[in-house]
Amino acid sequence: MTEPAIKYRLIKKEKHTGARLGEIVTPHGTFPTPMFMPVGTQASVKSLAPEELDAMGANIILSNTYHLWLRPGEDIVKEAGGLHKFMNWKKGILTDSGGFQVFSLAKMRDITEEGVHFRSHLSGEKLFLSPEKAIQIENALGADIMMSFDECPPFFETYDYIKKSVERTSRWAERGLKAHQNKGTQGLFGIVQGGGHKDLRAQSARDLVSMDFPGYSIGGLSVGESKAEMNHVLSFTTPMLPENKPRYLMGVGSADALIDGVIRGIDMFDCVLPTRIARNGSCMTSHGRLVVKNAIYARDFRPIDDNCNCYTCRNFSRAYIRHLIKADETFGLRLTSYHNLYFLINLMKQVRQAIMDDNLLEFRESFFEEYGFNRENHRNF
Amino acid sequence: MTEPAIKYRLIKKEKHTGARLGEIVTPHGTFPTPMFMPVGTQASVKSLAPEELDAMGANIILSNTYHLWLRPGEDIVKEAGGLHKFMNWKKGILTDSGGFQVFSLAKMRDITEEGVHFRSHLSGEKLFLSPEKAIQIENALGADIMMSFDECPPFFETYDYIKKSVERTSRWAERGLKAHQNKGTQGLFGIVQGGGHKDLRAQSARDLVSMDFPGYSIGGLSVGESKAEMNHVLSFTTPMLPENKPRYLMGVGSADALIDGVIRGIDMFDCVLPTRIARNGSCMTSHGRLVVKNAIYARDFRPIDDNCNCYTCRNFSRAYIRHLIKADETFGLRLTSYHNLYFLINLMKQVRQAIMDDNLLEFRESFFEEYGFNRENHRNF
Repeated sequence: MTEPAIKYRLIKKEKHTGARLGEIVTPHGTFPTPMFMPVGTQASVKSLAPEELDAMGANIILSNTYHLWLRPGEDIVKEAGGLHKFMNWKKGILTDSGGFQVFSLAKMRDITEEGVHFRSHLSGEKLFLSPEKAIQIENALGADIMMSFDECPPFFETYDYIKKSVERTSRWAERGLKAHQNKGTQGLFGIVQGGGHKDLRAQSARDLVSMDFPGYSIGGLSVGESKAEMNHVLSFTTPMLPENKPRYLMGVGSADALIDGVIRGIDMFDCVLPTRIARNGSCMTSHGRLVVKNAIYARDFRPIDDNCNCYTCRNFSRAYIRHLIKADETFGLRLTSYHNLYFLINLMKQVRQAIMDDNLLEFRESFFEEYGFNRENHRNF
Repeated sequence: MTEPAIKYRLIKKEKHTGARLGEIVTPHGTFPTPMFMPVGTQASVKSLAPEELDAMGANIILSNTYHLWLRPGEDIVKEAGGLHKFMNWKKGILTDSGGFQVFSLAKMRDITEEGVHFRSHLSGEKLFLSPEKAIQIENALGADIMMSFDECPPFFETYDYIKKSVERTSRWAERGLKAHQNKGTQGLFGIVQGGGHKDLRAQSARDLVSMDFPGYSIGGLSVGESKAEMNHVLSFTTPMLPENKPRYLMGVGSADALIDGVIRGIDMFDCVLPTRIARNGSCMTSHGRLVVKNAIYARDFRPIDDNCNCYTCRNFSRAYIRHLIKADETFGLRLTSYHNLYFLINLMKQVRQAIMDDNLLEFRESFFEEYGFNRENHRNF
């Protein structure tokens, strides 16, 4: 049997919560968890260079199978020597399966047992994605971590629909596992679905754990439900997963949800939020969100966040960044993107320290207090 | 009398041409000439960080008075501690006077002896710019080198119009010189106009030289005339200027025009060309222009230019850059902007070596040959 490409080492459990300190071992390095992973949808983390991602402490970045399949095509990425060489990134890469994009971006979906027929959001072209096809594309891309092709139904679908969807997702996971060609160099994760239903999450987890994936993702969250509901689902789902495998909460990237996810045993997070809001000049800070485009910052020569030591905060003022964003200068979104990603990566570093020190709940309380979650004059995120 | 902020040191004249090797001494460093200066219209060189400009060998960058006056306003830049601090650039900065933009961008111009009434290209607001007002804004911005407020008429205006315009530009230069408050820290250049007419260029040069500016710009070129015409005008204009002052050819940035300008005694160049064409994926290379967006580069894993040692060419392939530009990823234009600016800055380095070695004409010949100026299958630029 092939040695799995991805391994997880549990270092320490926090005393008062479900949080865990660990390491994920990949073919491109061993990285501490819990971690936040920046998203580079089209083989580029919006406006940033690989050296900058490295400098801010990013260890694994995401890229989207659906997007790269459509453009430039996975064959070109493969010919380049894989995604790492194509984009010149030497640390870890994770690719999703394309499932989420098919269900959120593409038009005229037709879901069958075999796979999903749909139209490209770019060209309108008719396309078909199946568990085998998704894995074949992911194998060509060559990321360290791959995702199974799953169905991601809306959180508030009927119980019956979600039950059928969970069962299909399990069958698709098995087909994907069989199709996977590079088990020694790429680790395939199963995705636990089941909406808000404990029994369906249990069924999904049981099915997938029996297939012995090297890691498990939790999907179908952050899709319309409240944060309380999300935390509730996490509370009963992570205990269903084996302790010796990493747990990845897909598509979640707000500071509060990251901390609350870690408390419930999550090891990995990704989200487009930090780079998406950066384009409008929205910045994550230790005092809450700061919309640097606002007029009150026109003559504010302080950094975005006085507690931040990132490249942006060490070198540029709110007034300058506001000017750049107002004037549509792309260097402005470079600076805000860098800051927001650094903020979440640095937050996870502090979270890891708090796990080490067994004071994660105290850390959460003081972070939330400073962050203004209880104050009406700050927007939460 | 105050020591001038800007000085020029002539190091060596090339034996067979009018080219000269020198140094320009500014309050933010002493830099070798001939030089190419990247343009950062709105206090940012499109998509690039100050550290990157420094790394590629940029020594003086431009910024536009008209744009910064309108947004964010020169008072904000002044409050930030000047343009250097505002944008975190520690080497030289040059600001134009806003004249060119008033004549090229603004609407409903009304030119009087006092100055120019016009409407903002952003808001439509009524505005007025005069020699005194332009200098007042440039003093607030605090660049090392400032430009006089001039009229830049089309190359093919009537002789009578250009003569009147030259005379007004001289009167405006004198008014600007009188208004200039920071002679010890900012050097004001006069701008020689006169279209294609030798006697008018002579009149303009004589007027300005009598005012003893620390440097002279040549304006009114690269505005519709042919390159042969431009070179012809340069051939008779630079000899009208004092040898102990730098000569700056405004708005010229194609590789051939740079070399031909140096041969005629030009020391400084600026142009938006390298960053503007970069946005469409057009790259300057030692073999001519390469439009990396073209389909033939989809599977081309070589660098943009096999003779180039820039960050872009050391790390990324044509196929990857093509993908980024096609997918509207801003990192793509970062890479092409970096490459194009590096190309011109590196070209000037080679030109300085050729002046040192007294073989500039041989350098020109082999560069033009390799560049494909005589081959029909290459586009010139």
